[in-house]
Amino acid sequence: MRYSKLFGKTRHDAPHDANSVNSQLLTQAGFVEKQSAGVYNFLPLGLRVLHKVNDIIREEMDAIDGQEILMPALHSRQVWKATGRDDIMEDVLYRTTGADDQEFVLGPSHEEIVTPLVKKYIQSYKDLPLSVYQIQAKFRNEPRAKSGLLRGREFGMKDLYSFHLTEKDLDEYYEKAKEAYLKVFDRCGLKAHVIEASGGAFTDKFSHEFSVETPAGEDTIIVCEKCGKAQNLEVAEGKVEDPDQPKEKEEDLKEVDMERGFTIADNAKAHGVPEWKILKTVVYEVEEEGLIGVCIRGDLSVNTNKLEKYFGKPMRPASPATLKKAGLVQGYISPVGNPEGLSFVADHSIANVKNFVTGANAPAKDYVNANVGRDFQIKDFVDLVEVKGSFRCSTCDVALKEMIAVEAGNIFKLGTKFSESAGFTVSDSNGKLQPVIMGCYGIGNTRIVGTIAEASHDENGLIWPLNVAPYHVHILSLGKDQEVIDAADKLYQDLLDEDVEVLYDDRDGSPGVKFKDADLIGLPLRLVVSKRAMEAGGVEWKERAGGDAKSVKVGNVVKDVLKFINS
Amino acid sequence: MRYSKLFGKTRHDAPHDANSVNSQLLTQAGFVEKQSAGVYNFLPLGLRVLHKVNDIIREEMDAIDGQEILMPALHSRQVWKATGRDDIMEDVLYRTTGADDQEFVLGPSHEEIVTPLVKKYIQSYKDLPLSVYQIQAKFRNEPRAKSGLLRGREFGMKDLYSFHLTEKDLDEYYEKAKEAYLKVFDRCGLKAHVIEASGGAFTDKFSHEFSVETPAGEDTIIVCEKCGKAQNLEVAEGKVEDPDQPKEKEEDLKEVDMERGFTIADNAKAHGVPEWKILKTVVYEVEEEGLIGVCIRGDLSVNTNKLEKYFGKPMRPASPATLKKAGLVQGYISPVGNPEGLSFVADHSIANVKNFVTGANAPAKDYVNANVGRDFQIKDFVDLVEVKGSFRCSTCDVALKEMIAVEAGNIFKLGTKFSESAGFTVSDSNGKLQPVIMGCYGIGNTRIVGTIAEASHDENGLIWPLNVAPYHVHILSLGKDQEVIDAADKLYQDLLDEDVEVLYDDRDGSPGVKFKDADLIGLPLRLVVSKRAMEAGGVEWKERAGGDAKSVKVGNVVKDVLKFINS
Repeated sequence: MRYSKLFGKTRHDAPHDANSVNSQLLTQAGFVEKQSAGVYNFLPLGLRVLHKVNDIIREEMDAIDGQEILMPALHSRQVWKATGRDDIMEDVLYRTTGADDQEFVLGPSHEEIVTPLVKKYIQSYKDLPLSVYQIQAKFRNEPRAKSGLLRGREFGMKDLYSFHLTEKDLDEYYEKAKEAYLKVFDRCGLKAHVIEASGGAFTDKFSHEFSVETPAGEDTIIVCEKCGKAQNLEVAEGKVEDPDQPKEKEEDLKEVDMERGFTIADNAKAHGVPEWKILKTVVYEVEEEGLIGVCIRGDLSVNTNKLEKYFGKPMRPASPATLKKAGLVQGYISPVGNPEGLSFVADHSIANVKNFVTGANAPAKDYVNANVGRDFQIKDFVDLVEVKGSFRCSTCDVALKEMIAVEAGNIFKLGTKFSESAGFTVSDSNGKLQPVIMGCYGIGNTRIVGTIAEASHDENGLIWPLNVAPYHVHILSLGKDQEVIDAADKLYQDLLDEDVEVLYDDRDGSPGVKFKDADLIGLPLRLVVSKRAMEAGGVEWKERAGGDAKSVKVGNVVKDVLKFINS
Repeated sequence: MRYSKLFGKTRHDAPHDANSVNSQLLTQAGFVEKQSAGVYNFLPLGLRVLHKVNDIIREEMDAIDGQEILMPALHSRQVWKATGRDDIMEDVLYRTTGADDQEFVLGPSHEEIVTPLVKKYIQSYKDLPLSVYQIQAKFRNEPRAKSGLLRGREFGMKDLYSFHLTEKDLDEYYEKAKEAYLKVFDRCGLKAHVIEASGGAFTDKFSHEFSVETPAGEDTIIVCEKCGKAQNLEVAEGKVEDPDQPKEKEEDLKEVDMERGFTIADNAKAHGVPEWKILKTVVYEVEEEGLIGVCIRGDLSVNTNKLEKYFGKPMRPASPATLKKAGLVQGYISPVGNPEGLSFVADHSIANVKNFVTGANAPAKDYVNANVGRDFQIKDFVDLVEVKGSFRCSTCDVALKEMIAVEAGNIFKLGTKFSESAGFTVSDSNGKLQPVIMGCYGIGNTRIVGTIAEASHDENGLIWPLNVAPYHVHILSLGKDQEVIDAADKLYQDLLDEDVEVLYDDRDGSPGVKFKDADLIGLPLRLVVSKRAMEAGGVEWKERAGGDAKSVKVGNVVKDVLKFINS
């Protein structure tokens, strides 16, 4: 493609409404253009990337026996009411009404459509397993849509649905799908971390997310770079370092007067101890259980998600009024002295700390040298800690890494939720009707484009991985010398003849502009044809991902390019 | 693909809600499945056809320098208000509202999006001409959606938009686009007739439709099969056969008493003459002009579209009250005797008829032997006739054919309508700002799939043209003989190895079912592997489009298949 003819040239003015790196770079480089928040136009360069991503997805889905179909965006609202998601997902559904007052939901996902559709064609267990997928536009009324292609109101998605007779068969397929997903991300040049996650509105069953590190992400994940295990912060487990106090002995419990602030920092400072020596106690009101005190080391935080899971019942931090009514003194609550009507659970982290500082259940009074077992009792030790990057991997004992990441794909074991709604059963080998067991598997293809931009760029622009680059090679011809133009034209044609994908900057522009645009657009290989390079008998070869520029002899360029793109 | 594994098998029960041939056949054969009226799921077979159609469209659009982009379906309602089409197209717009009360229109077309988008990247005439296109889902709230894939509420479309500095440049591109369109239809196995048409809601400028004959169509077109000229009934011209009355002389005008009915048939019967001998006169009320009588031969009809165009002003048939007030006698109106306050125009068809029968402007009184020029005066002779299949081509003098057809594509010269709305100007070579001149070019890709089904089937099922067939070859293995199964497996693999697209009916089913399904699905070539065929040393070869079954030697099959699909 001659750049002079290309629709969607670079724009060096940062668009004033670009609110994420991917949106800014992709807009400046002429890949996309925002229509409205979360709604984008794909220009020729961007669409070429998207098509390459789609082709990779198709190949990997076909490889796990996915059959491609295409479902509509207009869903009768009735089918969404049938599964209950018309209510549950109310906030993100776009709805519209047509002729004869027919109500539609604009599909944010397609379980409601695919389940009855597949049901029509499946009679017996012999027709299973089956998996079908589509690549299609989805619509979600996101309240915030400020992350460019990472969170769209209209966005592209590949959604695959699998249908099985047994849990075991689903489990096996699920593992195959997980591998296929990793191949997709890998081929797109992305390092995806596989994370066990809870399913959100879609399912309460087992699920995994595929997260890619980028500062623009909305999730915090905890990764062990040794064993590769990645965890969502909400559920992450890790090894808490015990404090280094080998010579410390249990001292006598003492009550002291202490006017102090309520923060752990205030407390530690007032007592002249490190924060880990403060016994932090927060009281929760738990439905059917009453008040429960939760203890953790002062330098650590309680992960409320873990706590909710532990209680398994609705809970909330006790209000000041509730504390007062229970005779508890806010800021000075402690398990020492066994306050009436209150039991205590604790995170494992307090087990190996000696001589805690804690409140004395009275205004401006603290205990020092409180020791668990001797001075206070814990009903239950549980993993309640919010893991941080400074923790260590439970398996490998190496430091964990905390990352901001974006979820670029997810897979769910749906079980029978949707097949039961649709009355979708098959007869098993004994002729007995069984509800069909389902899985669903999503990848945001437009989000992948944005994620690549986030994950692969430098201060000068985008850096496309070869597999998804809109073109492989960027030819720049410098100057108005006819000899140079002819040589560049010839190189362009020679590469096209070998099916190399080439963007040819044939504009009558300054070298500075051309170099800047080439860096911004970020094709893997830049070839400069100039008088100087020709005099040296060659073409300047520079790879966008790094390495110095070098000269390649004219006669070798095509061969070397073919080697480069097939490497 | 092994048919045993394919999602979307044949269903021999005619779906009770299939209301068109395309919907019925495509559903029975497992290509599509209706979601709701005008909203379809594409199953694997149907999607393969759609992808092939898309690929053909892409190649032809790329060949006329179209650059592919992808625009969203969610359009801010504001941009539709800006062009006035939020009102004009009100009836077919789906609308929805999202976060922050943002109102959207679901795009039924993309002029409102593409014009401001292109404007952002085009500065001067040097950036023109430019053409961009997309293949994307469109949404139209059609009141009737009962023609399967021919009229969808959600449907696929390729829409290309071209941008020019001059009318001349648009005209040249428009002709190229017309040729490209004909190539698309031809490659899809469709015979498209190019028709001059008025633009409807989209434009009042020059436009063409591409119509394909099918009984399921909504248009009537008039085609000369010799010169290929096709016309929309509304504007069609044709040669009217003069009556055969060479020996007839002008007889004397006579007034006769005649109690008769008002229809032409009644009139002709009462006088004992053929219908062409009745001078039919209808009076119209024309704004600013008053009452005008329109005369035509009794066996012909006035095309009100032509009449409206001739008057160029609002008009309607005069009401009985108006006629009475003007002293005219309904059913007996005639130009003979020059009724006061009334002038007459006539279709050319009356010029060569002698001795007309006409009313005498009095109750139950007619003239016979009325002759134009001698007995009555016509202010203006015009082409006002509604053309029928019995007419002859004005150019070739061969009989015209009346066809029911579906519009599978259309192209419009938009002029500056949308560029003016968007304030889209470019500086010309003199530095003067000029509004950009636009064209738009649409093809319904899903409609093409339906049109092929309509145009190419027989009583047993679909007959896919090779270029768009979901697979080239349908292998049937008959019986449970292991030797047969092995031979069929081998043939399947041999053809796959040569990149032939094969559907292999490997089911353990009866020959009758397999033959019936093969006919219904309609792949171009059926190869039967059976014990009988093997004993005869070959494979049975049968082309779906016609011709007898024959035996092909096993050793020659692959070679012959390659020849067949590359023919």
